[in-house]
Amino acid sequence: MPAATAPKKVVLAYSGGLDTSIILKWLQTEYGCEVVTFTADLGQGEELEPARAKAELLGIAPENINIVDVREEFVRDFVFPMFRANAVYEGLYLLGTSIARPLISKHLVELARKTGADAIAHGATGKGNDQVRFELAAYALEPDIKVIAPWREWDLTSRTKLIEWAEAHQVPVPKDKRGEAPFSVDANLLHTSSEGKVLEDPAEAAPDYVYQRTVDPEAAPDTPEFIEIGYEKGDPVSLNGKPLSPAQMLTALNELGGRHGVGRLDLVEGRYVGMKSRGIYETPGGTIMLEGHRGIESITLDRGAAHLKDELMPKYAELIYFGYWFSPEREMLQAAIDRSQEHVSGTVRLKLYKSSVACVGRWSDRSLYSEAHVTFEEDAGAYDQKDAAGFIKINALRLRLLAMRNKRLKDG
Amino acid sequence: MPAATAPKKVVLAYSGGLDTSIILKWLQTEYGCEVVTFTADLGQGEELEPARAKAELLGIAPENINIVDVREEFVRDFVFPMFRANAVYEGLYLLGTSIARPLISKHLVELARKTGADAIAHGATGKGNDQVRFELAAYALEPDIKVIAPWREWDLTSRTKLIEWAEAHQVPVPKDKRGEAPFSVDANLLHTSSEGKVLEDPAEAAPDYVYQRTVDPEAAPDTPEFIEIGYEKGDPVSLNGKPLSPAQMLTALNELGGRHGVGRLDLVEGRYVGMKSRGIYETPGGTIMLEGHRGIESITLDRGAAHLKDELMPKYAELIYFGYWFSPEREMLQAAIDRSQEHVSGTVRLKLYKSSVACVGRWSDRSLYSEAHVTFEEDAGAYDQKDAAGFIKINALRLRLLAMRNKRLKDG
Amino acid sequence: MPAATAPKKVVLAYSGGLDTSIILKWLQTEYGCEVVTFTADLGQGEELEPARAKAELLGIAPENINIVDVREEFVRDFVFPMFRANAVYEGLYLLGTSIARPLISKHLVELARKTGADAIAHGATGKGNDQVRFELAAYALEPDIKVIAPWREWDLTSRTKLIEWAEAHQVPVPKDKRGEAPFSVDANLLHTSSEGKVLEDPAEAAPDYVYQRTVDPEAAPDTPEFIEIGYEKGDPVSLNGKPLSPAQMLTALNELGGRHGVGRLDLVEGRYVGMKSRGIYETPGGTIMLEGHRGIESITLDRGAAHLKDELMPKYAELIYFGYWFSPEREMLQAAIDRSQEHVSGTVRLKLYKSSVACVGRWSDRSLYSEAHVTFEEDAGAYDQKDAAGFIKINALRLRLLAMRNKRLKDG
Amino acid sequence: MPAATAPKKVVLAYSGGLDTSIILKWLQTEYGCEVVTFTADLGQGEELEPARAKAELLGIAPENINIVDVREEFVRDFVFPMFRANAVYEGLYLLGTSIARPLISKHLVELARKTGADAIAHGATGKGNDQVRFELAAYALEPDIKVIAPWREWDLTSRTKLIEWAEAHQVPVPKDKRGEAPFSVDANLLHTSSEGKVLEDPAEAAPDYVYQRTVDPEAAPDTPEFIEIGYEKGDPVSLNGKPLSPAQMLTALNELGGRHGVGRLDLVEGRYVGMKSRGIYETPGGTIMLEGHRGIESITLDRGAAHLKDELMPKYAELIYFGYWFSPEREMLQAAIDRSQEHVSGTVRLKLYKSSVACVGRWSDRSLYSEAHVTFEEDAGAYDQKDAAGFIKINALRLRLLAMRNKRLKDG
Repeated sequence: MPAATAPKKVVLAYSGGLDTSIILKWLQTEYGCEVVTFTADLGQGEELEPARAKAELLGIAPENINIVDVREEFVRDFVFPMFRANAVYEGLYLLGTSIARPLISKHLVELARKTGADAIAHGATGKGNDQVRFELAAYALEPDIKVIAPWREWDLTSRTKLIEWAEAHQVPVPKDKRGEAPFSVDANLLHTSSEGKVLEDPAEAAPDYVYQRTVDPEAAPDTPEFIEIGYEKGDPVSLNGKPLSPAQMLTALNELGGRHGVGRLDLVEGRYVGMKSRGIYETPGGTIMLEGHRGIESITLDRGAAHLKDELMPKYAELIYFGYWFSPEREMLQAAIDRSQEHVSGTVRLKLYKSSVACVGRWSDRSLYSEAHVTFEEDAGAYDQKDAAGFIKINALRLRLLAMRNKRLKDG
Repeated sequence: MPAATAPKKVVLAYSGGLDTSIILKWLQTEYGCEVVTFTADLGQGEELEPARAKAELLGIAPENINIVDVREEFVRDFVFPMFRANAVYEGLYLLGTSIARPLISKHLVELARKTGADAIAHGATGKGNDQVRFELAAYALEPDIKVIAPWREWDLTSRTKLIEWAEAHQVPVPKDKRGEAPFSVDANLLHTSSEGKVLEDPAEAAPDYVYQRTVDPEAAPDTPEFIEIGYEKGDPVSLNGKPLSPAQMLTALNELGGRHGVGRLDLVEGRYVGMKSRGIYETPGGTIMLEGHRGIESITLDRGAAHLKDELMPKYAELIYFGYWFSPEREMLQAAIDRSQEHVSGTVRLKLYKSSVACVGRWSDRSLYSEAHVTFEEDAGAYDQKDAAGFIKINALRLRLLAMRNKRLKDG
Repeated sequence: MPAATAPKKVVLAYSGGLDTSIILKWLQTEYGCEVVTFTADLGQGEELEPARAKAELLGIAPENINIVDVREEFVRDFVFPMFRANAVYEGLYLLGTSIARPLISKHLVELARKTGADAIAHGATGKGNDQVRFELAAYALEPDIKVIAPWREWDLTSRTKLIEWAEAHQVPVPKDKRGEAPFSVDANLLHTSSEGKVLEDPAEAAPDYVYQRTVDPEAAPDTPEFIEIGYEKGDPVSLNGKPLSPAQMLTALNELGGRHGVGRLDLVEGRYVGMKSRGIYETPGGTIMLEGHRGIESITLDRGAAHLKDELMPKYAELIYFGYWFSPEREMLQAAIDRSQEHVSGTVRLKLYKSSVACVGRWSDRSLYSEAHVTFEEDAGAYDQKDAAGFIKINALRLRLLAMRNKRLKDG
Repeated sequence: MPAATAPKKVVLAYSGGLDTSIILKWLQTEYGCEVVTFTADLGQGEELEPARAKAELLGIAPENINIVDVREEFVRDFVFPMFRANAVYEGLYLLGTSIARPLISKHLVELARKTGADAIAHGATGKGNDQVRFELAAYALEPDIKVIAPWREWDLTSRTKLIEWAEAHQVPVPKDKRGEAPFSVDANLLHTSSEGKVLEDPAEAAPDYVYQRTVDPEAAPDTPEFIEIGYEKGDPVSLNGKPLSPAQMLTALNELGGRHGVGRLDLVEGRYVGMKSRGIYETPGGTIMLEGHRGIESITLDRGAAHLKDELMPKYAELIYFGYWFSPEREMLQAAIDRSQEHVSGTVRLKLYKSSVACVGRWSDRSLYSEAHVTFEEDAGAYDQKDAAGFIKINALRLRLLAMRNKRLKDG
């Protein structure tokens, strides 16, 4: 980066771990710039206060250290809207990493504005999707922000070089971080993802020690557990009758799902940057929420709305996976989806057992299910079966005209 | 139906059961017409030869009785093409009943042509989807065929009336058929569906005795079973290394899945005729095939093709559910889907356990997965991380222009 | 219709013409029911007060006669929202008839509620789309309303029978209505459509006398006219600098377009009821609005939003054509479309000449067009051309991996 | 480019003009590499033989000079398949430049293989779409090819610098090329596009002198011309009864359209690289073909197929505009589209007048139009209007269930 455009003050997405500590030091060293740290509690399940001490040790002024609990915001403003869409990427992936990135960028940008920083920095590599997600979100919110992605800039291309650089620059290196990690992990309240290294051969099953927040289904309880989730306007609001905030809800469902081995996924997916990669995902609460939401929609959402949602969903999921959360087209789709959820309220009963989640009951005062219409019994005139004959004849007309044409041609 | 248009000769989809026996007799009585029976072995798991004796008893001439094994045709020409699309209706339903109906209509129409019949008849009611599927398919293949749906015509609107009519017309009524069946069943090699009566309250869990071809997951083996399915051009062709024909494959997977409690689904769905209905589906082999196909596609199918397939799928599934198998638009989508499957060949390894199916490995000489590109290690120049910076900057440009516009407006 | 379900009081969509006068009388005669008339000024360009005298002559009580000017409502709540979508059916048709039907049904239903009527009636035939549009809208707004469509019920299947019935029942028959009209017409502020009779052979050009609100392009002025339309949030609000209400705007554009022979369309289209029909449409103002809206969107709407709109449009247009204005899925799409129009404000300059409308200029303080970025000249660093290299390399990666796979297979 | 990866032999897309002559010399100078020239007759309307002399003058060996007439291939394999889709980008643009780029890349790659070249080069800038189209196509066909885009590499960022460099390197500079061209032009048999410089303000109308292959509509004949185009399987094959090859057809339609001022378009569009740009397009023959194809489809293509095509089209057009002609997803869509065209055969009659093209008649032995069904007259039982009542009742059911639910909630 030419000196003229070098950043003066950078807000860094800082985890407190070795890699982002090296980045912190590298930013100071390479650009001589002031660094502001942002450390978010996204529900990744780590103590964050140690990050403060580390940042201070690396010379960050106390007023430049920011540790923020964003769990409620994350679930309320990002996870829940996404689950209204029943979003899955490539048929299976619940987008646990993708949905957290725009939130982080939003905070980085807001901090940059507040502190007068002209740049933000993140620790994502140049091969993955996360760099795209961080940066598209940042540019969409602050078009002239500079974004620094050290992994694309520096030449610390091996673990050895990285450790050497850290030691040469007084970045403390914990003993257990000297070697290579066997795989790479990202975690937040929605999921844990693991990839790389020992997971790079998609023909080989993932080793047990990869899984972090779900028990092996074989070790899960031998008896099923039944739960009831209450929904309002498409969002889960109560568990077994008890009202819960968004983050409380996801936390509780994670605990339940994790205990029953729910939500493991071994997937090869197509990255936005073009190559395929293999990920191991654990999304216990999210897996339950998807099933629950489908269950409550099944009785409260009209078929026309439901099918339109199904058709829009792949594009919506792709937009989130690719990093376009803050884009007009994602917002348009969200408007359509949210419009459909007005009456998606009621209760679903789910069975958790040995990794499976099954909806076994659903009820609602908004239900569109009409026993009077569907019954095999006498329906007291609710439905006239003779109407169906006309329905079919009219729907068949164009097919009959086609068949007549084809016969005519054949008979020549 | 006015006399002028009354059928002279009717091909009836005849199961040999009480209901279609009554229909057979009713056609003879009501229209004085000759009846040709068609009884198909779709893998429903019932003896079909008794249907011959019953038809004879009801006065059908031997040459008018047709009992045909269509299992290979069913799986090869209907089930497999559908599974190439990863088709699910409303997110969950594998379309087991829907996909069998056009096959039956095709045979009814062919028999009508062969025997000079001017009509076909089926035993589907006026409230369901099946009438639509039977009839749209028939009209698409033979535009001037008459279709007789006795359930929409007669006034035998209660079980009592039906039995009385049968007895008054010498249709033998087995003792166990005098009362109401507790629910209604449809079965073929792909699935068993159950609906109606005791299942009509969607808030109540389905009773255990409804399930017919899968064991209760809790009663399934306590140890998982691993299987390997070989795929060629999108279709499963071998199981644990052994080549199998289409029907053999589905039979074998049904046995495996059934044993592990795989493929149960309790669903409220939106019928084409407008009301919601609740069905209990068991699709053991199909559930395995869906997971297997996604697994092999994940390494052999390009992201662009895969995402387009995902976007087209809901429409494709809807067409099949609604009864438009023989329609130009289904054939167009099939052409697109089939075009994508040329290299969807290779092997997947699946784990079956207590109702769950998980892909734990996949490999192929057609694989697009490139460890060289994705690796966290040095990649010997396969991928230049600096390219990603340009990729992001260009993708961000329109979002930045939007943000600049919005800033400009805000700043007045 | 069995007596038990015969209507007691019917709100009739009454034009004052012969056909709906016969219907009025027929309702009184056939059902002995009270009739309330609803006559709407939709901008069809006919005097409506004569309808009052005719209704009175047919025995309708003054308080049961309703003549309402709905032009502003029509354009503001139906036409403008539809034009935000750039909706065209089958590539060409601007949906002029389709969009008026739900408005009429809304008023019929409201009048039924207000007057305690249990039914509504319309004069659409059983072969067309309008019956569907009227009735779906009515049922969506009032689920238990009865709908009477005399053309589907009575046996007045020829002009002769109809006139005989009228004369036998004291319905005045104007002399010029004794013979067959050479074609059938529907008109409102958005368009005039003509179909049937002399237009039934799609190989033959429509005769000149069919066209009613546009001059023959050959007779249009030999010099072009330039106009400027101001847009706000996707709707046209001023013409040549002068603010106009919605109905004033469409009226003024109709006059302009009509004078220049703009908006004629000779189309064969696929009806919802299955057959193809040929229509001659004149939509002068609408054709100008479509071009104008595309023009203002071209500089104010982001590419992502614009392309999503283009993908959603055919479904949206189909919904309106098929009669699903009041459906959850149309409302979802409308929410998405409206979400996109927040900044679709500015001015377009259009050239009208001999049936063509061309956008020749567009400007806006919301413009996303950046001369700084697009210029062939030095751009002062707004855009780094080297970024494009990375953009292409990353986008090419999956295509290169495909090509490598294919080479590998070919080389064996 | 580091020496190690510098190209040894480059196939250059060479027009014979000044810019690509400078590129030719620059490649020789910068990389010391051998240059092979490829000059294609795409119907751009220029003499190509002078390119041979120029190439020789710049030191290219005769066997390295390739001048090829690709007009038939261009129209048959690229233009016609695209027009089967009725492809328009952003509602209006007929993709005239986009569709030519993959053809050129295909030839460049084939020549590279044939001559043992390791690279190709093109003269597109780093701001436009063409670089993307050239390069994505090249990589899709030959994954390891090098692509050289001098405009992204060199520092000849002004006209002055470019001319100076040319003079310093013995590239002949014609006198009329010393100054800036007032705008930039691309042409082929499908269209001429003009952009940049005097056209950069989208508020200002394009000056007359920009238009090159169409007369001003005001100067076009005062009497319309009627033509008949014969179609087979979706492609035009005869004009006024005379069979024509693909390139002959487009040439003839260009002449006809140009004479009547048909096919001018003044558009602001969203480029793939993110900014908006303004283009002036002239596509006389293509505009006629689009209208003709829609006309013949209107009577031969089923509604289901037609609507599916309409839904797929925006994505298809986007893929071509973005440069993904050689991609699995474009090929999937093409398979679907081509599947629909089997019976799109017959004749359309079109009226050309003062820039407008209107279909005024269409007929075919494949026609699906059935006067028997659509007629206002007695239809001899082809269609039973009472069927429509059932059709509507069943389609309304879900809307009625919604309305009942909403009433229930309102009434509390």
